[in-house]
Amino acid sequence: MSLGEFGRIERFFRPLAAGVPGALGLADDAAVLPVADVEGLAVSTDALVEGVHFRAADPPEAVARKALRVNLSDMAAMGAAPWVYTLALALAPCRGDLWVERLAAGLAEDGAAWNIALVGGDSVRAPGPAMLSVTMFGRAPPGGALTRAGARPGDDIWVSGTLGDAALGLRLLEGGLGPVGEADAAFLADRYRLPRPRVALGAALAGRARAAIDVSDGLAQDLGHLCRASGVAARVRFEDLPLSAAARRLRADGRAAAADIAAGGDDYELLFAARPEDRAEVLERARRAGTPVARIGKAAAGEGVVLLDGAGREIALESGGWRHA
Amino acid sequence: MSLGEFGRIERFFRPLAAGVPGALGLADDAAVLPVADVEGLAVSTDALVEGVHFRAADPPEAVARKALRVNLSDMAAMGAAPWVYTLALALAPCRGDLWVERLAAGLAEDGAAWNIALVGGDSVRAPGPAMLSVTMFGRAPPGGALTRAGARPGDDIWVSGTLGDAALGLRLLEGGLGPVGEADAAFLADRYRLPRPRVALGAALAGRARAAIDVSDGLAQDLGHLCRASGVAARVRFEDLPLSAAARRLRADGRAAAADIAAGGDDYELLFAARPEDRAEVLERARRAGTPVARIGKAAAGEGVVLLDGAGREIALESGGWRHA
Repeated sequence: MSLGEFGRIERFFRPLAAGVPGALGLADDAAVLPVADVEGLAVSTDALVEGVHFRAADPPEAVARKALRVNLSDMAAMGAAPWVYTLALALAPCRGDLWVERLAAGLAEDGAAWNIALVGGDSVRAPGPAMLSVTMFGRAPPGGALTRAGARPGDDIWVSGTLGDAALGLRLLEGGLGPVGEADAAFLADRYRLPRPRVALGAALAGRARAAIDVSDGLAQDLGHLCRASGVAARVRFEDLPLSAAARRLRADGRAAAADIAAGGDDYELLFAARPEDRAEVLERARRAGTPVARIGKAAAGEGVVLLDGAGREIALESGGWRHA
Repeated sequence: MSLGEFGRIERFFRPLAAGVPGALGLADDAAVLPVADVEGLAVSTDALVEGVHFRAADPPEAVARKALRVNLSDMAAMGAAPWVYTLALALAPCRGDLWVERLAAGLAEDGAAWNIALVGGDSVRAPGPAMLSVTMFGRAPPGGALTRAGARPGDDIWVSGTLGDAALGLRLLEGGLGPVGEADAAFLADRYRLPRPRVALGAALAGRARAAIDVSDGLAQDLGHLCRASGVAARVRFEDLPLSAAARRLRADGRAAAADIAAGGDDYELLFAARPEDRAEVLERARRAGTPVARIGKAAAGEGVVLLDGAGREIALESGGWRHA
């Protein structure tokens, strides 16, 4: 017999809120967050739907961690320090208590890793695909949050980590990539399933980067968002985009197209703009945050994003980017 | 052709955030709420699922308003002043832009009525029933939020408004109530579709009531929650439960059972405990809040909720209350 909504909350979720001030043991009508010492409270909401943002067969622990991490990535893009979160969970009755227990184990694992606690939520029955909606709260940095809106013509455009791995991982999991070496396959699938939110880098860049966004819908589309918000154009050199060894191998044998790299979603890297005179400072801050960063282009007057190949010719992307829809 | 996720946000949702500090035009990775002057931030999350919490044929305006109001009711139960909210919306592709436009119109209507603004959210595709998850933020009252945990033996138990109307309204809409006069039918259906969150009463009771909860799962079950959290028992006189004229008529001709009244969900009235010496003060505060309240019983030492009929005999309810599941 199922534990039911109240039983699941008590058994699996209440331990995630143990000892958290304001969570009231998940047993009241609302949490009451003590924000007297918080200047700006960063709030993000991201929902994951089964069959759209994760696969029905994905391990529930990984689903939980992805739900947290896409929100942690939003916190990173604001330069905010993640603090607490709420979870709305809608599940078909056929999902048993074990699935929920494993989901809670994933929340516990990443909760401990990122020092974030559950403070509230809702658990409901849904006669359809599973859905998780996380609302995350973080402390904005003292000088104000990073936004998408501060880039100016002449700024350098930077990106963290490597691009395209998650999109290649999804293609691999869906059987569309052909044979791939074992280590590369594991690396790419993991990059799709488990984002690495750049929280330390975001915090390190606060007060220095002029604009930032996390790359969730693909570099081309998200750079477009940053440019529109800032009122600038951007020119990016495709050859400067940082690639993993696995992506380089797939690129070398023609299986990773420019669109996989520049328009593939789910990277969850940080894309940001900074003044050229801050190059050394940016590199030093990234080094202290333990996160590789690469300069990939420049902001310019005007609007739009242009991607250039090694010969300076524009690379056309089929769509403006990659959409979940 | 559909506007798509970004088009819908820009066209229908961005106007709901116009001019709201920290919402960043719904165009950044997170909102940044200015909380420097907020002591305690009340946070509630409630999700509504099509086919479970609302009917597929319900007008989208009413669905939107219900999603806000169930959260407003949580704010009321904490004595908090509602402030802003985020929305995660999952919709099947077959729901057209018009449905979303009408949904946004409902958000706009109640947003204006309750002076609450949208500050962020997510809009995703879901191959199944529609789901709305609202996370609402309110300012806790200066002396601290009302919780479920402060009732003591000897306290009066009070409830606002009338009980059972929403459960009768749902039975009516599902065709299980038989013929009902036109005015009563409209009243009951409206009570099901559109909760009246007792925000003014909750704020008025802060600092005076000793414990409070909103009645969403039925009086019996929610009083049970309050008693468990407070470590008390409660005895309630069925004859003292406040009924609407419509419910009284259905009760008189045998169509409204005790369970409809005492265990029916979706009332969204406030249930609270206060000291007997505060009776006059409670009535005066309720009067100033424009909300009728009724004393329905007493808290006592021990545990459990007992419902007594006019002769002092215990009324058995089939379940501990009413569940969505």
